[in-house]
Amino acid sequence: MLVPVPGATTSGRWCGRCVTTVRRLASRHLLCHGGTALAGRVPAGGRRPGVAAVACPIPVCSGCAAPLGAGAGSQPAPGRPRRPGLCVPRCDRRRPSVAAAHLRRRTSGKWHTHPPEVLPLTVGEMDVQLAPPVRDALIQAVEAGDTGFAGPQSTARYARAFRRLAQHRWGWDGAREADCHAVPDIMRGLVGLVEVLTRQGDAVVVNTPAYPDYFGALEERGGRIVEAPLSAAQRLDPDTLDTAFQAAAHSSSQALYLLCSPHNPTGTVHRRDELEHVAALARRYGVRVIADEAHALITWGGARFTPYLSVSGSPTALALQSPAKAFNLGGLNGALAIAGEEATDVLARLSAVMPHGRSHLAGIAHCAAMAEGEPWLDALLAGLEENRRLLQHLLHTDLPAVKYAPPDGTIYAWIDCRPLQWQDDPAELFLTHGRVAVISGRPYRTGGDGHVRLNMATTPELLAEAVRRMAHTARRCPG
Amino acid sequence: MLVPVPGATTSGRWCGRCVTTVRRLASRHLLCHGGTALAGRVPAGGRRPGVAAVACPIPVCSGCAAPLGAGAGSQPAPGRPRRPGLCVPRCDRRRPSVAAAHLRRRTSGKWHTHPPEVLPLTVGEMDVQLAPPVRDALIQAVEAGDTGFAGPQSTARYARAFRRLAQHRWGWDGAREADCHAVPDIMRGLVGLVEVLTRQGDAVVVNTPAYPDYFGALEERGGRIVEAPLSAAQRLDPDTLDTAFQAAAHSSSQALYLLCSPHNPTGTVHRRDELEHVAALARRYGVRVIADEAHALITWGGARFTPYLSVSGSPTALALQSPAKAFNLGGLNGALAIAGEEATDVLARLSAVMPHGRSHLAGIAHCAAMAEGEPWLDALLAGLEENRRLLQHLLHTDLPAVKYAPPDGTIYAWIDCRPLQWQDDPAELFLTHGRVAVISGRPYRTGGDGHVRLNMATTPELLAEAVRRMAHTARRCPG
Repeated sequence: MLVPVPGATTSGRWCGRCVTTVRRLASRHLLCHGGTALAGRVPAGGRRPGVAAVACPIPVCSGCAAPLGAGAGSQPAPGRPRRPGLCVPRCDRRRPSVAAAHLRRRTSGKWHTHPPEVLPLTVGEMDVQLAPPVRDALIQAVEAGDTGFAGPQSTARYARAFRRLAQHRWGWDGAREADCHAVPDIMRGLVGLVEVLTRQGDAVVVNTPAYPDYFGALEERGGRIVEAPLSAAQRLDPDTLDTAFQAAAHSSSQALYLLCSPHNPTGTVHRRDELEHVAALARRYGVRVIADEAHALITWGGARFTPYLSVSGSPTALALQSPAKAFNLGGLNGALAIAGEEATDVLARLSAVMPHGRSHLAGIAHCAAMAEGEPWLDALLAGLEENRRLLQHLLHTDLPAVKYAPPDGTIYAWIDCRPLQWQDDPAELFLTHGRVAVISGRPYRTGGDGHVRLNMATTPELLAEAVRRMAHTARRCPG
Repeated sequence: MLVPVPGATTSGRWCGRCVTTVRRLASRHLLCHGGTALAGRVPAGGRRPGVAAVACPIPVCSGCAAPLGAGAGSQPAPGRPRRPGLCVPRCDRRRPSVAAAHLRRRTSGKWHTHPPEVLPLTVGEMDVQLAPPVRDALIQAVEAGDTGFAGPQSTARYARAFRRLAQHRWGWDGAREADCHAVPDIMRGLVGLVEVLTRQGDAVVVNTPAYPDYFGALEERGGRIVEAPLSAAQRLDPDTLDTAFQAAAHSSSQALYLLCSPHNPTGTVHRRDELEHVAALARRYGVRVIADEAHALITWGGARFTPYLSVSGSPTALALQSPAKAFNLGGLNGALAIAGEEATDVLARLSAVMPHGRSHLAGIAHCAAMAEGEPWLDALLAGLEENRRLLQHLLHTDLPAVKYAPPDGTIYAWIDCRPLQWQDDPAELFLTHGRVAVISGRPYRTGGDGHVRLNMATTPELLAEAVRRMAHTARRCPG
């Protein structure tokens, strides 16, 4: 949830005064009274019984422009325009309570893996409410008892909704219905494709640092990981890819390249020219490309997502797409496997068990998201864009030693803590001494050591509190 | 939805007059006017504009005792006791409309695989509304945006809820938390266990007729099916099992026995003594038992479900359990793999991808069902029990040539159409000539040819209409 304050510059950057405001609110009202007082509210007027008055402008909800903590039914202040942002919880007229109170009521892994005093910015959940069309579609289905099995029409509906979204969002006219196959989720789709395409011991090229679950899933199926580390600027490195493709093709009946686009954890959004180079290399060495495009909908600023199958020279490739990440539907799985023009035979060979994991209710939610969720998505992206800037400012001020390049996509910040010169894993130290949970970079293999992945899809208050705790850890643990 | 009428005997059997009533209602009001008028209502008083009055007692909703078609907010008639039954849609005070109108609004496979004039009694969905605790838990989670990932706590919560249910329902004190592993659904759990336990070409003993998806799932993973047909009475046959176990063990590094309990499609509920014999045989031949207990909660009358892991001599076995079938949550998948005392190591070796298919929202629904859904389940079972008797009566009257033994469990009727002496598949003829969709028995292998599986978890009106259409088919297609 974004909290723009009067005086913030129109460019979306945070002035020092605003950042101070957010930081003070975080420390005084949300988390610091015993560590568990997450439900604290800042009433209109900036005062709260028993707590010193906040001597700074009163933040307003970026969506409805009502003062934070205003009760049910509050209306936008006259003359204040609506602004998009990560403010969905507070803007939901039916539940206009403070976001943090919502979050602790959730029962998902993010909020219940650690003790309540730990602030979790870990797995890919977002601290937002569901997009209203998604919420409404789900409630309607639940009320109607529409919880049976997904049928053939579900796949067709899903594919059509995705195709329309892709046309509108990226100007891509691909993903015809016949090229799509509904799969339970991105990872199961990926494993299914790998099973169809490779034999025991075949190489899979992966850009590191990489999502750790790739390694387990591929290796237990006999896949041999060939690392192709990203460049120092966290971009695809043509020479490294060339070498990796050559080695992989040389030692495999069918070598694969698992392209993560946009890249998790670095947030790199690959440019079209980079992907065209990938396609040329793949063709040269006979490497089959599978693109995991789970974060396709989460890019901002000048970065523009390019569907790999829209790149010339990609007809034998396959892509995996899902709106789950962008619409916070990790617990309601679903995805599409999409084949390039010369790869449709691969989909026909997918496991007979694949349909069993598909959730009809997830299909309903995903279709609603793709068909009607774009305004909500745009607001989300604007909020994420401001969050990445806020995080940059906070880290620069409170924890200047670490290195952080604001990403162009995904919900993650990839933070290089090596300048702190810690012997131990930074994620462990942050958890032990700061009571803030982030993901350790170590399992991401090459390029991951000394890094942490921080999920910044949260409120600015919690983001500020996280940095405060990380800075506290740095003071407690000199390198 | 059951429709008991005044004059029905207290034993639950249907007198001739009541059956006539249901049949007339079905043909006049629900489906017969153009084939798509599923939303027809029978107003209080038995008259409907433009339709002849129903010259028989007015049916009442078995749950709230209000006349069928009564509007919102109707109260139970004074002096009429509440009776359980498959009446959940009509008893839902927030949506007291006629069930059939609900059903056509569903978007699941059952209701949208065929054209609208076809009456579908196919896949394992039930024509009921969700149990109120399940509905409420889902709506609460959706409103709270609790759609993130399932965490370790979710598994623990799920296992505890199942253990309490198993204790209460079957007096079974097993399924300790440490013996349980959450899996995405029964079939994915089954395939995962088979992957861990067997090598290419190992035998899997299956009682036929058997759920067709078993064959595809097992064979594509290199499993070799050894059939052990049920007896003529559709029960486990000790001699057949002995022969099959011996053959399977002889030719495998690890032979498996996939026990379907209760058995789909026949509805056989295996007795404890039968399962003890299975355990003794399995021990003798070193065959590992995996029990698919998807329908465990759906038994009635004198039949009592026996968890296979509660049988003496089953410590190396594994079971798969889920409340999805009994609570109509096929589109919101989830299940538990449960290990016998000497099989917990198997769970630790399950695929690393397994957690990716797990739906957090499904976990919330399943836990609510197991913790608070028993009263609803009891009403459902009473309704299903009456439906199987109604079906028996209808078939005896309108289609006496077919053979049907009312099952003790599951939601299916397994109907032997061989006496009709058709050359073609009965399911195809019923669909083509009667516009009623049932599942062909042919893919169930031995014992399946000439049979159909009919899903009887529907309203008595639709059940009556289905039999009317089947009888019409028999008249059109003499053998």
